[in-house]
Formats: sequence, C-alpha cells, structure tokens
Amino acid sequence: MKKFVNNVDDMLTESLSGFATAHSELVTVQFEPTFVSRKQKAQNKVAIISGGGSGHEPLHAGYVGKGMLDAACPGQVFTSPTPDQMLAAAEAVHADKGVLFIVKNYAGDVMNFEMATEMLPFDHATVLTSDDCAVVNSTYTTGRRGVAGTVIIEKCVGSLAETGADLASCKALGDKINLRTSSIGAALTSCTVPAAGRPTFDISDSELEMGVGIHGEPGRRREAMRTADAIVADMVAAIVHDFEAKHLPTQGDILLLVNGLGATPLMELYLIYNTAATLLTNKGFNIARSLVGNYITAIDMAGASLTACLLDDDIQQHWDRPVHTAGLRWGC
Amino acid sequence: MKKFVNNVDDMLTESLSGFATAHSELVTVQFEPTFVSRKQKAQNKVAIISGGGSGHEPLHAGYVGKGMLDAACPGQVFTSPTPDQMLAAAEAVHADKGVLFIVKNYAGDVMNFEMATEMLPFDHATVLTSDDCAVVNSTYTTGRRGVAGTVIIEKCVGSLAETGADLASCKALGDKINLRTSSIGAALTSCTVPAAGRPTFDISDSELEMGVGIHGEPGRRREAMRTADAIVADMVAAIVHDFEAKHLPTQGDILLLVNGLGATPLMELYLIYNTAATLLTNKGFNIARSLVGNYITAIDMAGASLTACLLDDDIQQHWDRPVHTAGLRWGC
Repeated sequence: MKKFVNNVDDMLTESLSGFATAHSELVTVQFEPTFVSRKQKAQNKVAIISGGGSGHEPLHAGYVGKGMLDAACPGQVFTSPTPDQMLAAAEAVHADKGVLFIVKNYAGDVMNFEMATEMLPFDHATVLTSDDCAVVNSTYTTGRRGVAGTVIIEKCVGSLAETGADLASCKALGDKINLRTSSIGAALTSCTVPAAGRPTFDISDSELEMGVGIHGEPGRRREAMRTADAIVADMVAAIVHDFEAKHLPTQGDILLLVNGLGATPLMELYLIYNTAATLLTNKGFNIARSLVGNYITAIDMAGASLTACLLDDDIQQHWDRPVHTAGLRWGC
Repeated sequence: MKKFVNNVDDMLTESLSGFATAHSELVTVQFEPTFVSRKQKAQNKVAIISGGGSGHEPLHAGYVGKGMLDAACPGQVFTSPTPDQMLAAAEAVHADKGVLFIVKNYAGDVMNFEMATEMLPFDHATVLTSDDCAVVNSTYTTGRRGVAGTVIIEKCVGSLAETGADLASCKALGDKINLRTSSIGAALTSCTVPAAGRPTFDISDSELEMGVGIHGEPGRRREAMRTADAIVADMVAAIVHDFEAKHLPTQGDILLLVNGLGATPLMELYLIYNTAATLLTNKGFNIARSLVGNYITAIDMAGASLTACLLDDDIQQHWDRPVHTAGLRWGC
C-alpha cells in the first residue's frame, strides 16, 4: 500500500485538520467527539446533519455550508460514526426547528444514528437513502444501499431548510427525492482501506464488478471487461428498469450525475456521461441538469457510478439554489 | 490497461462531446479543428486562450468561462494541439483587444503556439508558464516545466481581462504570477497513456518519484517511500529554496494549492495540505488562500503537487473575483 499517510490511526484527524484549515471561512472541526460544522451557525431553521464512514470524500464534510448541511459526523474509514458524535453535532447546530439526519442505508450507520435519535432532546426525523439499484441486500445492508443520490438529497433538502421550512417538509422532500433517484456503480479496480493495507477484493485485468458498492461490496456480478459503451448501456438499463419497478415515468426531466469513485480520470467520466446522456435521451428523458466529477468516492477505486434523479419543479428549484460548501458551490 | 474507453482514437472526441453537453450552458465545442469556447462570446476584452495535451483535466477546457479562459485547444493525450486549432479558436473568440496565449513550457506546445502566432492576424502575446522547480530541463522541455501554477495564472489573468485591461497588462500579470509561483510534484504510481496501453514508467511499491512531471517525466530522483510528513517536508523545502533562488521573500501572504494528479483520494490531499500549511506557516508565510483538489492531473497517476504563489493585492484581488467554469466556480 502506497498512500500519503503518517500513522494510519492519525489519518482522519490530520486530514480533517487540513480540511478545516483549507476551508476556515466555511467550517470548523471539533474532535472527541468529532464533527464538522458551519463556521457561522445558522439560525431558525431545521438543522441538517449527515455522517458516515470516511473514505467517500468530499461526502459528507465537503457538503457542510450554506444551502446544504449544518454538520457532518465522519467515522474512521468505512466505519460508522458513533452516537456521541451525532449528539454533539446536534447540540452544536440545532436552531429551534428540529434536527433532520440524512443517513445512508448501512447497518452500522442506521444503528448509530437511531441510538442518537433516542437520546436527542430535540424534534428529529431521519431520511434514509437507498438509491443503489444494483442489489436488494448487500454486505452491510438490509435493503438497498445509499450511494450518490445522497448528494442530491443533501443539496435539495439543505436548500429547503434554508427557507425556514419545517422538519416534516424537509423529511418529505428527502424521502421524495430518494424514491425518484436510482444509481448503479461499476468498478475496474478495488479500493485499499488504509488500516487493512491491501485491496478489499481481487479483480483481474480482464474483469469489472458491475453494481459495486462504495465500500467495495460485491455488486450484481463479475463481468468481462468491455467497451465503455457496453458497460454504460448496462448501467443505464439497470436504472431504467429500476424506474419502471418503482412505477416512475421513463421520460421527463432528469438530473444525471456521473460520479467518479476516486481514481477515474475526468476524461473518462465525461466519456461515460456522453454515452449515458445519449442513451437516456433516446429513451425519452431530458437531461435537464448534470453533474460530473468525484462527489462520493470509494477511496482510490477506479470506477464510476451513474445516478438519475427524476426532477419536478420543486426538486429542480432546490437543486438550482445557491450553495457554498467545499465540494459543491454555485450562486455565491 | 483498464479504462472506460471505446476506441482509443475516439476517446478525446467522445469525452469533449460529453463535456460540452454536460456544460452546455457554459461552453461549446468545435471539431476539426478542435477547440472549446464560451457559449456566450465575450465582447471588448483581450481573448485569453490556452491549450495543451489532454489528460490533465480539468485543465484547460474546464477553465473556459466567464472570468477565466475564452477558449481552450486540447490536443490528444499528452500531445500538443496543432496551430490550426489555435488559429480557429482565436478567430472565433477575438474581441478587438488582441489575443493572449497562456502556454505551459513544453517543446511541442511552445513550437505550435509560436507557429500560430506567426499566422495570427490580431495583436497577440504569450505567457509561458514555468513554475515547476523540480528540474531545470526535462524530457519535453528546455527550461522549467509549466504545471499547476498555470491554473492560478489562467484564473487571475482571466479576471483582469474581464475588466477590459489591455494586452500588455494581461501579459504582465501572467508573467508576474509565473515568477512568484513555485511548484513540485511527487508520484506514487505511474500514469497510463491510453494509446500506449501500459504505464509510462515502472515504480516499485517501496519507491516514489520526487519532482515528477505531469506526463510522468522523471523528477529529481527516485526515493524510498516514507511518511507523508517526510515527503511534504522535502516538497516544501524545494519550494522555499526556489523562492530564495528567485529572490522572493520567504514570508508574506501565499496561495497554497495542493493538487491531486488523478488517483489520489481527497482525504490524502487534505492530509498533505495539513502538513504543508503547518510547515509554510512555521517558515513565516501566511496561507491567505487555499485550493485543494484535482486541478491539473496526469491521467490516473497517484501523486500530488504543491504550489505556492506569493500574493500581492493585485493577484489576490483577481484570484477572489467571480469565476464560472466547469472546474473553478465562485461568486456567481
């Protein structure tokens, strides 16, 4: 394993310290318990808090800031944060309108966020994200995994909360977007968890993992490596099939997110986008909004995921509103 | 080689098509000859044009837009664009105040941009970037290589041009920033040029290349892999030494850019930032501005570069002004 690291045990602390210094106009970081919050505490709004294992940067700390999250609770790499982190974050950022947790559906995260809610002295609700249509259950989940759709949910719910909307409305928007969003990933290589020091799985030069999870969990199947067009066609078909299974229309405006899993060049991500956009347009969708880049990663995995979110005026409006975070910024 | 690719020969065209579709509100792409330009042609300003081999994305096409470049001319991967591309781009975007080319110092780029200027029917000037302090001459250069400092130059000169400043002023600002900027990179892995199909160089699991170029050119030396702190300390020392050699003060406000070369997780880049910021602050610098992420890459190389730019009020003001491109965006 070759990484820019000193001690594996100090990696998260050192990285978060760098993050907080590099973005000191935006965020502050607290340790023991560890959470990242906005430098300027927001007033009179639902506090939006997310978190999960590290290794998916810029998710979640990179989405703390005006128009998106109030706080993020990072665990060690691929390890859930603990309830004391969520409680400390909620205590720090709550602003009299309740706390909404946005949680990716993984057993450890679900359990620890639930424990936090049981101790929370504020009104609270949780949006559980489960946009990954690759598999029904997975290594760390009962039910579908939460993946790149989480970024869209955090952006739009963050925008709604900024308007002073109440807790129920924020939760309803998050749940609605989750239902209208499908994702699937494909890996060309494994990732290497620093504490493990070796790749999470073996994969040969002639194979890819279709439907891979963001922790390197198995997907649908190990397949022969083939052209980008053939890979992307299967990914688009999986998403369209999932839309049909969810009784969503397979036409209308969508947001198309092509997400890099860490080690995939932007040149390849745009090539994937080119194929996916063509196929989805031919299916009858209109690509009304696009996002291409590394937004939720799997450490150093070479791979990419596709996400389609079926827009409506409400979702699109909140997507378009200003956001100022380290990982997403526009309109300010 | 595993990449998301159809035919290697079509890769650039397909990727640029995806780029132009994903950012259709910002840019358009033309083929034969190939260049990317702003969707809305700017009026009454110096036209700022850059270009170079592909494989460094988001550089340069990702920096086309308001407040930065008017056009970018992408060559094939790690291959210079041809003079007809620069001429076509200049013809398309010139706006009666002359054309400024921003060119990274590599023999092919320098030669082809020079040939273009000889045929150009407009006032023109060139800023040649050479911020890489690793080596004096290199595989593809006589003189120092142009690397991540190019991003800062494109941003600030783009901002100045937006004010209606004349050609000489724009060139003077670019030259000034180039003099006040030093960079150095370190590679943990090689990169793989798609057309070659194999890594550009061999490097063992116990080695790193200190001073690597953005095409995988050799740097100062092959070294034993060691802690991030030890690697970054050597990189910071190289930059400080270069400041001294250029008779720049080794105190005052700087912009610190920690740039990923393609496959390095953001978590590691922030860890590098943490060490570099501490060391530079202890030297007497004040980190007034920061940028951390993949801004000029070497395809899929695991590695990072450090860049320090000595700010003055002029440079800092232009850095801070609004920019709206695919790769850098703030203030709008």
